[in-house]
Amino acid sequence: MTIEVDYRFPPGIDAEKQAKVIAIGQTAGTWDARFAHREQALRSHLGEVVKGLTQPDGSSIVTIRFPEANVENDVSSLLTMIFGKYSMAGPAKVIAVRLPEHYGRRPQVGMSGIRERLGVFDRPLIMAIFKPALGLSADDHAATLQEVSSAGLDIIKDDEILGDLQGVPTLKRLEACRQVLDEVKQQTGRTVLYAVNVTGAADKLIEKARLLVRQGANALLLNVLTYGFSVLDALAADPEIKVPIFAHPAFAGALCGSPDYGMAYSVVLGTLMAHCGADAVLYPAHYGSLPFDPAEEARIRDNLRSRNVFPVPSAGIHPGIVPQALADYGQEVILNAGTGIMDHPDGPAAGVQAFFEALDWLKQGESWEAEKLPVGPLRRALEKWGKLK
Amino acid sequence: MTIEVDYRFPPGIDAEKQAKVIAIGQTAGTWDARFAHREQALRSHLGEVVKGLTQPDGSSIVTIRFPEANVENDVSSLLTMIFGKYSMAGPAKVIAVRLPEHYGRRPQVGMSGIRERLGVFDRPLIMAIFKPALGLSADDHAATLQEVSSAGLDIIKDDEILGDLQGVPTLKRLEACRQVLDEVKQQTGRTVLYAVNVTGAADKLIEKARLLVRQGANALLLNVLTYGFSVLDALAADPEIKVPIFAHPAFAGALCGSPDYGMAYSVVLGTLMAHCGADAVLYPAHYGSLPFDPAEEARIRDNLRSRNVFPVPSAGIHPGIVPQALADYGQEVILNAGTGIMDHPDGPAAGVQAFFEALDWLKQGESWEAEKLPVGPLRRALEKWGKLK
Repeated sequence: MTIEVDYRFPPGIDAEKQAKVIAIGQTAGTWDARFAHREQALRSHLGEVVKGLTQPDGSSIVTIRFPEANVENDVSSLLTMIFGKYSMAGPAKVIAVRLPEHYGRRPQVGMSGIRERLGVFDRPLIMAIFKPALGLSADDHAATLQEVSSAGLDIIKDDEILGDLQGVPTLKRLEACRQVLDEVKQQTGRTVLYAVNVTGAADKLIEKARLLVRQGANALLLNVLTYGFSVLDALAADPEIKVPIFAHPAFAGALCGSPDYGMAYSVVLGTLMAHCGADAVLYPAHYGSLPFDPAEEARIRDNLRSRNVFPVPSAGIHPGIVPQALADYGQEVILNAGTGIMDHPDGPAAGVQAFFEALDWLKQGESWEAEKLPVGPLRRALEKWGKLK
Repeated sequence: MTIEVDYRFPPGIDAEKQAKVIAIGQTAGTWDARFAHREQALRSHLGEVVKGLTQPDGSSIVTIRFPEANVENDVSSLLTMIFGKYSMAGPAKVIAVRLPEHYGRRPQVGMSGIRERLGVFDRPLIMAIFKPALGLSADDHAATLQEVSSAGLDIIKDDEILGDLQGVPTLKRLEACRQVLDEVKQQTGRTVLYAVNVTGAADKLIEKARLLVRQGANALLLNVLTYGFSVLDALAADPEIKVPIFAHPAFAGALCGSPDYGMAYSVVLGTLMAHCGADAVLYPAHYGSLPFDPAEEARIRDNLRSRNVFPVPSAGIHPGIVPQALADYGQEVILNAGTGIMDHPDGPAAGVQAFFEALDWLKQGESWEAEKLPVGPLRRALEKWGKLK
């Protein structure tokens, strides 16, 4: 089996030459007569230029095929090979990576497993984020969790900025929130997932993740790009960590934002996450508050789903976008709202209710306008945030 | 103590507005009356816009000050805060990060420790890379090491692409090479460092690093950016790992290449590495084979040295650049050559000798031209690669 990578070069770059530089320079390199006796082994590691294509705008796309024997069946060694030293060679962007089905790992829980744990199979899942991000106590978190859980929320997560800080250590937050989750379970039979942000130096982070799970964490949040794909890899494979891992895209723009450098969002947040064991992946929605290309978003969605990973469009999500989100995603999606739930004029519980109200209206096939809705959470939300056209 | 970050925006961006978005959105965020009782705590986590400056070309630089209480004294949480979600908000580049002296960690070995281990204090160190990168056996590696060690080489490293592969597992390479290192020590009293590339999922990687050290590895190589800063953090703090860690810049271009996105090379390969425990950091030399800005290279050098981290300019280094390298770096540098040693017309030992010959001539204050040199390794090298003007 082989690995295929598409590189895009801006106009004016000799793509054919660069393709050869990659195929040779990112694999075995060159050799001379001294290594004639290793000719066969050396050749077996070389990359191969599959094709080149000049685009109407003068940019070029070349496809390189790499031997799977060069890498270690993980994302970190893959990145070193396909874009390690070469990333520093001038403008070039990795726009697609095609991996063998078996490459890397699949989620331990995934879309199907998350639905099973929640017992919800017939609608998008609704997810919230604790806000404000910093400065609250563990009890504040628990109080908020109480509100949104009672309103029917499926999943909540720490803000990605909230680490293991003095004043509100991760274990304390879990302890306070775990009590609420247990009460909800007892009183309603419902499971609510709380994705706890796990942080620290790699060894400590992995130990902490195990400890959190032992202490009752039923989901984890990982800033994969600031901690490393090798950390996701380790957590996803860990026999003690059987809870879903939510991958956060923090720092992705540093890798993916430029048109001419780095890697496409659909590669980093789609393909690579889906081959590294993430159970759900957050990424900017194109109708959200961050600028994002709808086609790229669709590719992320499809890359994730193809391996049973839950797509979680995020940023600027509020009840008004639900009709559009359902049109774009159907049921197999987690709608993740931060301020779109927490800053509802009538409080977080009303924020959650507004989402469910929107889902109910749509289920009944009704289209709605703010002014025609009955007074209530959804109408209040639309009055604040409007409805996506 | 506070953390200060400079962000550069291209012309046409409302930098003042973006500065506020960062100072608030990347810290506590906003809050309403519900959290009035937490006002003081929330405020203490907010970022602060220190200053903004419009450049002659229309671009803007703004400085944001972040509370140290928001992060965990490591690079990963720092990146999440200063450029996590915001990295996806449109064009912006982090061009400088100023951290408190105590932030993160310092190298366990560092420049001074590496010199002590080698017993070499009065000249630049010479480092080579095993080439070809893939396809050789452990015995091939040992044979090459034998050649270059006998010629006086100080340090050698695996190619960054060479992981723990079938046919040439990392431990086998170490085993074969360790024997050579021991013989050199016995016969000449000299220590040669071999930086073994350590790879794998984070937990396995850390275990493997410990095992390698127990088995006699006297240096490690880590692809920090494809495995994660949190992995470097863990290795650098590990009580079992007292050998120097060489940080490789593979994948840095994906983060640093673009003028308008990501982070400056001097931040990623300078500041962040120097606060994360690296003992030596490789990066492209501006006179090498990769395009690189001399001013940016100088900043990396200075950021590293300020914390006792060895600068290792690399890529396209050959004996002909030694005069320029000494002018730029003086003695406190490791000159790292791959093909510039391994592809010497008379073999790797001659490649090493050519470097030392160059150092000797310069020590005597002699300027040299290929045609005036005696027949020998340096003259042969200059005939092949030329001399940097």
